[in-house]
Amino acid sequence: MAGRMLGVLGGMGPLASAEFMRRLTLLTPAARDQDHIPAVLWSDPRVPDRSAARLAGGEDPLPALLRGIHGLQQAGCGAIAIPCNTAHGWFDAMQAATPLPILHIVDAAAAELARLGVPQGRIGVMGTAGTLAMRLYQQRLDARGYDCLVPTEQEMASLVTPAIARVKANEVAEAYEALAEAARRLAGRGARAVVLGCTEIPLGIAAGPALPFPVCDTIDALARAAIAWARGG
Amino acid sequence: MAGRMLGVLGGMGPLASAEFMRRLTLLTPAARDQDHIPAVLWSDPRVPDRSAARLAGGEDPLPALLRGIHGLQQAGCGAIAIPCNTAHGWFDAMQAATPLPILHIVDAAAAELARLGVPQGRIGVMGTAGTLAMRLYQQRLDARGYDCLVPTEQEMASLVTPAIARVKANEVAEAYEALAEAARRLAGRGARAVVLGCTEIPLGIAAGPALPFPVCDTIDALARAAIAWARGG
Repeated sequence: MAGRMLGVLGGMGPLASAEFMRRLTLLTPAARDQDHIPAVLWSDPRVPDRSAARLAGGEDPLPALLRGIHGLQQAGCGAIAIPCNTAHGWFDAMQAATPLPILHIVDAAAAELARLGVPQGRIGVMGTAGTLAMRLYQQRLDARGYDCLVPTEQEMASLVTPAIARVKANEVAEAYEALAEAARRLAGRGARAVVLGCTEIPLGIAAGPALPFPVCDTIDALARAAIAWARGG
Repeated sequence: MAGRMLGVLGGMGPLASAEFMRRLTLLTPAARDQDHIPAVLWSDPRVPDRSAARLAGGEDPLPALLRGIHGLQQAGCGAIAIPCNTAHGWFDAMQAATPLPILHIVDAAAAELARLGVPQGRIGVMGTAGTLAMRLYQQRLDARGYDCLVPTEQEMASLVTPAIARVKANEVAEAYEALAEAARRLAGRGARAVVLGCTEIPLGIAAGPALPFPVCDTIDALARAAIAWARGG
């Protein structure tokens, strides 16, 4: 059972992890059930809020994250994907706690940007307040030759943060306009592509018309990284 | 961690289990991540084909099903939902192997039919050749006052079976017309509602215009049963 079974640490939020499983399936070349990738999804939406922990002294999510990692390891998984960008603020502690490789969502996003024809240069990064405050994208992408623009504090407060909350409350279509507006502003300030660096954001963006510039969907990016791993990459 | 964590034995097929997780999330009243239902999805698409096992002496799926049940039990789940109708042909053996309650998809479909305003009478049942041969619906629904019509062998061979295979091969939109035609024929023969009694079928049916008669989506039906269980029902 072990070997190439993928572990997915999800529930952050649960709609994003369900969408990750859907995209993992649809992006896998398959003619029948048995061609698809075996996976275990640990969807625990009770993990304390990651942004609140970083920015407002909220409850530490690490113990709950480690419970999920341990559960996936016990299940016999061979690697772990985490379809939540903000949780990657605890990446080093999670990776230190397991011998299984954890596929880093920012590395997956970089590969997706290259696939989209944007291998370096000025890009926009949307994400939770926690992801931006921890500089998760800047830390890993600056060295690759990217220059990351982020929304202003005012744009975060009026557009991005409320829209992410709406997706988590199942109000997906209602999140589109605010997210599209924040992305358009980043493109207007010179971003050649915009990273949807919170897995709730692609759900909202998919609910309306396509944007007229490249967007890097971090759900798809992580699904492609997982498929490459399962295929032996 | 135990208690109200839902176990989902999936992967049969994987797109249907991803959709089950999505519908479970969207049908749950929730304002934030922490209001959603904790769940573990065991998505093992390597389970041997259930219809082939029943109809053509194919490999027995029971050992793989029991591995999944065991994995969900180890993970601390409190009940199990199986978003695959045909796998319910092994329901008694699975239930005998675990102390956890398994939510039966046919009982969930009966509750959904009542919700749709069809508490008895002539209904159509679409499903895999295995589900129909095992009379999974007739066995449980005849006693509740339903009279189950099923597609003819010719309709199964030309419409339903190839369409289910297309969904499993990610050709979802291409499955719509054959499935809609099979459903229309059952309605034309007097079915007051049609049960989409294979979890690939609602995926195909959702890819085109709505049908002009009630359809019972067994993914939604099972999701509602799981939510009722999680809420203490």
